[in-house]
Amino acid sequence: MSLEASLAALSIEQVTSENPVALKTLVFKPKTAKTATPIPIIVLALQSTSTPSGLIASSANVKDPRLAKDDLVEQFFQTSTKKFSFINITKNHSSKVKILIDSNINSNDSYEIINEDSKVVVKGSSILSYLNSTEVEIINVDFSIAPTSTSTPSQQSKPNKIEKDTKAQLEGAKLVGVTVDKFLDFPGWYQQILTKGEMLEYYDVSGCYILRPASYFVWEQIQDYFNSAIKKLGVRNAYFPMFVSQKVLEKEKDHIEGFAPEVAWVTKAGSSELEEHIAIRPTSETVMYPYYAKWIQSHRDLPLKLNQWNSVVRWEFKHPQPFLRTREFLWQEGHTAHFSFEDSNEEVLQILDHYDAIYKDLLAVPVIKGKKTEKEKFAGGLFTTTVEGYIPATGRGIQGATSHCLGQNFSKMFNISYEDPEGKEDKLFAWQNSWGLSTRVIGVMVMIHSDNKGLVIPPRVSQNQAVVIPVGITAKTSKEEEIAILDGAKKIEKELLAAGVRAVGDYRSNYSPGWKFSDWELKGLPIRLEFGPKDLQNESVTVVRRNDSQKFTVKLSELSTEIPIILDNLHNDLYNKAKELFDTHKVVVEKWEDFVPALNAKNVILSPWCGDIECEEDIKDASAKRNDGEDEEVDDKAPSMGAKSLCIPFDQPTLKPDTKCVRCGKEAINYTLFGRSY
Amino acid sequence: MSLEASLAALSIEQVTSENPVALKTLVFKPKTAKTATPIPIIVLALQSTSTPSGLIASSANVKDPRLAKDDLVEQFFQTSTKKFSFINITKNHSSKVKILIDSNINSNDSYEIINEDSKVVVKGSSILSYLNSTEVEIINVDFSIAPTSTSTPSQQSKPNKIEKDTKAQLEGAKLVGVTVDKFLDFPGWYQQILTKGEMLEYYDVSGCYILRPASYFVWEQIQDYFNSAIKKLGVRNAYFPMFVSQKVLEKEKDHIEGFAPEVAWVTKAGSSELEEHIAIRPTSETVMYPYYAKWIQSHRDLPLKLNQWNSVVRWEFKHPQPFLRTREFLWQEGHTAHFSFEDSNEEVLQILDHYDAIYKDLLAVPVIKGKKTEKEKFAGGLFTTTVEGYIPATGRGIQGATSHCLGQNFSKMFNISYEDPEGKEDKLFAWQNSWGLSTRVIGVMVMIHSDNKGLVIPPRVSQNQAVVIPVGITAKTSKEEEIAILDGAKKIEKELLAAGVRAVGDYRSNYSPGWKFSDWELKGLPIRLEFGPKDLQNESVTVVRRNDSQKFTVKLSELSTEIPIILDNLHNDLYNKAKELFDTHKVVVEKWEDFVPALNAKNVILSPWCGDIECEEDIKDASAKRNDGEDEEVDDKAPSMGAKSLCIPFDQPTLKPDTKCVRCGKEAINYTLFGRSY
Repeated sequence: MSLEASLAALSIEQVTSENPVALKTLVFKPKTAKTATPIPIIVLALQSTSTPSGLIASSANVKDPRLAKDDLVEQFFQTSTKKFSFINITKNHSSKVKILIDSNINSNDSYEIINEDSKVVVKGSSILSYLNSTEVEIINVDFSIAPTSTSTPSQQSKPNKIEKDTKAQLEGAKLVGVTVDKFLDFPGWYQQILTKGEMLEYYDVSGCYILRPASYFVWEQIQDYFNSAIKKLGVRNAYFPMFVSQKVLEKEKDHIEGFAPEVAWVTKAGSSELEEHIAIRPTSETVMYPYYAKWIQSHRDLPLKLNQWNSVVRWEFKHPQPFLRTREFLWQEGHTAHFSFEDSNEEVLQILDHYDAIYKDLLAVPVIKGKKTEKEKFAGGLFTTTVEGYIPATGRGIQGATSHCLGQNFSKMFNISYEDPEGKEDKLFAWQNSWGLSTRVIGVMVMIHSDNKGLVIPPRVSQNQAVVIPVGITAKTSKEEEIAILDGAKKIEKELLAAGVRAVGDYRSNYSPGWKFSDWELKGLPIRLEFGPKDLQNESVTVVRRNDSQKFTVKLSELSTEIPIILDNLHNDLYNKAKELFDTHKVVVEKWEDFVPALNAKNVILSPWCGDIECEEDIKDASAKRNDGEDEEVDDKAPSMGAKSLCIPFDQPTLKPDTKCVRCGKEAINYTLFGRSY
Repeated sequence: MSLEASLAALSIEQVTSENPVALKTLVFKPKTAKTATPIPIIVLALQSTSTPSGLIASSANVKDPRLAKDDLVEQFFQTSTKKFSFINITKNHSSKVKILIDSNINSNDSYEIINEDSKVVVKGSSILSYLNSTEVEIINVDFSIAPTSTSTPSQQSKPNKIEKDTKAQLEGAKLVGVTVDKFLDFPGWYQQILTKGEMLEYYDVSGCYILRPASYFVWEQIQDYFNSAIKKLGVRNAYFPMFVSQKVLEKEKDHIEGFAPEVAWVTKAGSSELEEHIAIRPTSETVMYPYYAKWIQSHRDLPLKLNQWNSVVRWEFKHPQPFLRTREFLWQEGHTAHFSFEDSNEEVLQILDHYDAIYKDLLAVPVIKGKKTEKEKFAGGLFTTTVEGYIPATGRGIQGATSHCLGQNFSKMFNISYEDPEGKEDKLFAWQNSWGLSTRVIGVMVMIHSDNKGLVIPPRVSQNQAVVIPVGITAKTSKEEEIAILDGAKKIEKELLAAGVRAVGDYRSNYSPGWKFSDWELKGLPIRLEFGPKDLQNESVTVVRRNDSQKFTVKLSELSTEIPIILDNLHNDLYNKAKELFDTHKVVVEKWEDFVPALNAKNVILSPWCGDIECEEDIKDASAKRNDGEDEEVDDKAPSMGAKSLCIPFDQPTLKPDTKCVRCGKEAINYTLFGRSY
């Protein structure tokens, strides 16, 4: 029976809606004893909601749920997995199956139900009331809420169910530490290291997160570097309001179109309704440019170069992810106006070099500089340059920061013009740039360097660079020796501080050295200095690197010179390791048949390409496997989304004459970097 | 006829409303030729709206409007000024009087109409439709919109009407410069120096302003100083989300009560209504403390000291004022949790000292440290300490920054508790502080130092500290000499930069030195260096101080040592001048009969006081003249609002035994500082 027919049979009304939200209905099979019949778990969720098996397991109180195959679906619902939808659930299933409903589904919205045969749109209220009528057990699940975790070592609380039930659980992992494997459950791992490592806290407004001192410190180092760099370019910092009136926001239609669905609106103050609704900036072009038009009257008012550090709000409805996709995020946005294209073009590239330097010199992250394709550039601008990173664990590319040449599009729209000093033209329009880098950089840094022991923070952005821990104190240690060790450790801490090393000492008496090692490893401190009886005797200290456990013995007399060198080497080694992984996973593919296999092997791909938008869209479709983001039971680790163009790298392989586009066979115009991406 | 009777006669319905907005109806008499009959201008505005006569003049196209006396009102409306209200306007007045309506008045709200006899509440729609029915000319006026002004010297536009019509216009003032007098029209002057001095720009969302580089630079200097100071105290920076869910915001009823009417609510994202309305933080106690409760489990987790630099939103409905009362403002808010009262108390005072230092050492502003009275302290806290400033031009006090000891009120509310390390108590609650300083400081600095030539920015926070201007080049100057002067000026600029002085050179050929002097004076640069033929000959340069035009001759060989000294002396002189004005206007008053006259003489008052809230409220009432904020025709410069307590200064005069409270005659417990205030 088709969906339409089924709906009609059940008296469920189809509706028309311009923007129905796509739903997916999934059947999971939990792990059971071999002799038992598994009872399916149904998940009804937004297409865009990610439904990790750990959360399904804990919510439904079952073990190891995996997508069910046809046999189980046939047995219970008399249909196949591809034809299954919520209307296959009937009163017959009450007190048998459980249904988990994504808490994002509500009565008011309209939803698109798709199966192999057909597509229908129904009201949320129809779905919910139908399901209620079946008397099947319904469990409401907020898939966006990550499991809470203990965040301080002093809270010896138990791990929650999700951790216990996940296959990716690390063997022998201490419960206060990271309990899931980076390569088996990357999202679970990412969340754990951020929260347990005290970088970030989940917040009770979905999509918003607390940046704890460890992550805000990274941001402060970036601010210091970038402020100093741009001030040399004549850029000055300013602050523009977070609010934009509706009429101003909507002035530049092309530009705002991309942001409109995500704009947060203030409609009330106290108990008063506002006469005009006021938007919170998703970005500040429309906030700033009317005033640029006012301030720029003569060529002497150029260049005008302003930057601001602020937060912007984009009310994403997709699954949020700390640092990478958040509803409020911190960034800097630079907006400059120039006399000529040449001036603006020069600045675009200067800024891109500074973004490159932030990644390389502060975060130890390699990126590739290049230009965005027409499809991926900033809407309304002339061209966009970008630095693109690579996350080895998932094989996905990630946009690092962008520097746009806006051309004269915005200056014509906002009338940012001035008298022609030569008197030839009626008026001349300014050439504009904008450029931005956000706290997303922190997420990239964490994903690349950290491991199953926790965070690994590169030394230049780590709020604490070294921890000093007294060791080797046992029941047999004399009081004098104990005091000598403690005093020695404190002296080391002081000397490091005096040498400009951000050091901290851990003299807590209620924890063993081993426990402390794990605790500071979790927090990602670059090095620890162990000071014990032997070190006391030898006037030296043992230094252990967080990233690879390399040990060194350093003479106490050489602390102030040796430790900074160790930290710098550590930075370089982090960078080089990440660079090698990027280099070996950036593969040149000339033929389409090698494209998807290379993607599936966690690579980003450099291919000769024709430059056509249609071809780019075709590449994306042809390289995607499933669109609902769910993994199949058989191959549950294969990524499935299509490849996007990441950039046209400035550093190009030689394009031989007559090279054809990897996808469409037309003449290639350059090598373009493609990849699955964040 | 009473208001009620008049309304009934006109079939205007009275309504009941919990929060009606108070209205005022004012009659103004414009200046006319002696032989002509003046035609009254009616202003119908919110009680809280300030209605400057300049704006009335330009809106109604009349000259010099002043509050009308009884005779004119009687002549036109057959009633007295005190009985006059909007219902006295009838069809008889059409094509005679004009009525200016405050654009804040809208159809939906309810308004309280008060005259000598009675008080009624009617809907906005009733008022507006009645006035429409009279066919009198209605002019809608946005009293919150300041007149636009030219902000760059290259825009040689004409002054607007408001300036021309204002009595306070400076004689001989250049139109691009400040055209109103600081002491005759303080608000007009303040607005002009901020916008023409390029510190601030008015923005199209009311109550929001653009902080241009000159003012944001001040804020950056404060950030640098304060970050360094608090990091030494162990405070770390963090960032918490700007959003608060409704249920969390409303958790602490007492605390939020004061903010509730000013909270901005996000109710929509894109085109979707949000299920739960989300507030923008008016302050972050409710944002942060639930997480403090999570993070603090043991006494080892204390102290927890976090600070954040962010913006908060308080949707004030009162007349906004740049820096002093804005709907969004930048601040820092520190929130710390301590083991004991002693620890928290110590920190409260350390922070207050840093606030004092920011005023004194960076902004050259004297403040008085003290404690707030029970009435004025932070709601929900234990006690509030404050630094209080004084604005000589208006004789008003101004709160500079506050450091609160919260006691255990919030920790009990949010359960910020930990195990008793001694095992005596079930659990112990943390002692908390919070402390904040906002961009209001910039307004205080500007109001105190600046003058009729424009801004005066103290050197330590001025983005440019010195401008070098070549002078004395005339038609008779040889080409060689001209080049030598220009090169000499550029060399001075370079040497200053090398000596760490933030210098800039003005080598524009299309402006005269005199024009440049005025331009840089407008912007408030601390010193200018004039370099001309004589200076060239003498190997020296002429230095002129912005604040008092003092001139010095400095040897070129001594630039790098002398200029920093000149800047430091300038800072000290600014501070000392302001301090002297504060000291001479801080008068001790022991008897009530001297109180109001002292206030009217632009003083703040140190009086023996009993400490009772009722007495404080009584002092406020008894020292106010009129409450609607309008000046009388006769004495139109007399301030009229009541005095509030500013603080109980730490530095107390000796309180002799049996000294009585200045107002109520009960035993005085201390000397308290009172004043009209911002």
